[in-house]
Amino acid sequence: MPVRALWFRGTSLYLLDQRALPGRTVTLRLRTLRATADAIRTMAVRGAPSIGVAAAYGMVLGANEGTYTPASAAKELGSTRPTAYDLFVGIEAVRAAWASGADPLAAANAYRERVVGECHAIGTAGAPLFRKTHRVLTHCNAGALATVEWGTALAPIRVAHDRGTQLFVWVDETRPLLQGARLTAWELAKEHIPHAVIADNAAGHFFRTGQVDAVIVGADRIARNGDFANKIGTYEKAVLAHENGVPFYVAAPWSTFDPHQARGGTIPVEERAESEVLEYAGRRTAPASSHARNPAFDVTPAKYVTAFVTPLGVVPPKGIARLLASGPTARRAVD
Amino acid sequence: MPVRALWFRGTSLYLLDQRALPGRTVTLRLRTLRATADAIRTMAVRGAPSIGVAAAYGMVLGANEGTYTPASAAKELGSTRPTAYDLFVGIEAVRAAWASGADPLAAANAYRERVVGECHAIGTAGAPLFRKTHRVLTHCNAGALATVEWGTALAPIRVAHDRGTQLFVWVDETRPLLQGARLTAWELAKEHIPHAVIADNAAGHFFRTGQVDAVIVGADRIARNGDFANKIGTYEKAVLAHENGVPFYVAAPWSTFDPHQARGGTIPVEERAESEVLEYAGRRTAPASSHARNPAFDVTPAKYVTAFVTPLGVVPPKGIARLLASGPTARRAVD
Repeated sequence: MPVRALWFRGTSLYLLDQRALPGRTVTLRLRTLRATADAIRTMAVRGAPSIGVAAAYGMVLGANEGTYTPASAAKELGSTRPTAYDLFVGIEAVRAAWASGADPLAAANAYRERVVGECHAIGTAGAPLFRKTHRVLTHCNAGALATVEWGTALAPIRVAHDRGTQLFVWVDETRPLLQGARLTAWELAKEHIPHAVIADNAAGHFFRTGQVDAVIVGADRIARNGDFANKIGTYEKAVLAHENGVPFYVAAPWSTFDPHQARGGTIPVEERAESEVLEYAGRRTAPASSHARNPAFDVTPAKYVTAFVTPLGVVPPKGIARLLASGPTARRAVD
Repeated sequence: MPVRALWFRGTSLYLLDQRALPGRTVTLRLRTLRATADAIRTMAVRGAPSIGVAAAYGMVLGANEGTYTPASAAKELGSTRPTAYDLFVGIEAVRAAWASGADPLAAANAYRERVVGECHAIGTAGAPLFRKTHRVLTHCNAGALATVEWGTALAPIRVAHDRGTQLFVWVDETRPLLQGARLTAWELAKEHIPHAVIADNAAGHFFRTGQVDAVIVGADRIARNGDFANKIGTYEKAVLAHENGVPFYVAAPWSTFDPHQARGGTIPVEERAESEVLEYAGRRTAPASSHARNPAFDVTPAKYVTAFVTPLGVVPPKGIARLLASGPTARRAVD
């Protein structure tokens, strides 16, 4: 059975609690907008496309509660996390429907279908990249958990694997929250795709010794020029791939492309609690008097990107602006 | 009181157990060569210069046990860890004395004094580098714990701080064993040197956004051409420093320079147990069926090194071969 990160049934939003994986499979039932906002903020649900869909359903819950306006609901959900553009696209898809008297649930369902369909299209478009590319490195989790179904970075890997391509995946563990070791490894293990978890520090060693054929990652926000924000550490892997002549791909649905950002430098980067770095499972690892800095994302300049894997195909960074201008329908939601 | 990683008293070697820090301060008393070998292998003592001194005293314990020859004692201690060259220099310093009928303890004490003296000289030589360089990044622990006293990378930081230079240290946490978060932060906190721990993934972000003025690291083995092995992740930071125009320094005593390696490619890289990546404090973080790869070191090409900080001064990579040929006395031990 394929992984599904979240689903709406009756009057509730259900989520796989991604903080508990892989040790325990816990399903959260959310009945209110505020509970949904908390789930996004605390990363019970994470991954830009999944955040967008969760927020879309959070808008539905807000509409049903009767105490929100479309604008106040959008404001509360929009304040949860600043970096992923999908959050704002998902919110806006439902806000616009609700404000115009249309059915919020139908709008949220349509948004969900669009994201899942685009991720499947990314898988089909990207799978041929791995026909002769056996050892693929990925960072963080850009799988089904991050995107409701299929994944962005993992979608081409899934499709290639289903077609019989022999693939091996290097999984960056992705400190501080270990989304690679906990979530990507869990998805790959479920589908028996060969993989090895590595400390983030080890990726460079495997690049330099010729053991990585390609890199593919997801994104949280992509500017018009192809600069993009993604999980902290992505920039490091992009520079190392470039230095070692390894192609570097970024997979994303249209909801991640932000037409309002000309360049990456203006993308807001969330800084999270220092305890995520200084503690593990509630146990302090650093000295009591030490502090930490904890940016959750970094921005990678477009020059390090070989190509974007989009629902319409594989596109070099220079083609992004034109592709967006030519108007994939999904792009119009918040223009 | 300054940190001391190990000391010999009576007929025993005493070590601060570096696995227990910073939470607990545990002193191990070692009475045998085998116990010393185990302490090195399990990283109760770690850091190339400290490993060398511990092994030198392990030879003394072996000589006192009466069941070893100089050669068999050297062989057992030499099999503990393959990468740090200091291990072999420390062993050889005592083996040669023992085999020629000299006092092993006097030889070990002399070796210890030499290492500590060279680290102090590194501090004096390197401190001026930080006169106008306020934000310094370091990786792993190359402090007193790694070198008995003073440190290699941390020695110039200590000396500069003592001279009143305003320094701020970015501490890579250094997965998988967190020597940065646990040990470097502990040393800096004890001396009230301002610092922040970061996930290794975040270093690139701070480079790219202009928040790192210099990098200084230690080394486990340096080839004649300036290629060097150090804790896994060092290569990544070196490439990122280079890409962002940030100077990158490597500090080491003579016992780390291996005259038998023309280039870094032939330096043996230890691969350690996958549990170090897959578990934390005995608790599994990755799925039960997932595997890991765990190289403990990587090799950084000399082209990424701005200069080596040696006991004789700050030397560019091209100067290393000539400096070694001109013969610092310590270099002769295992030629």
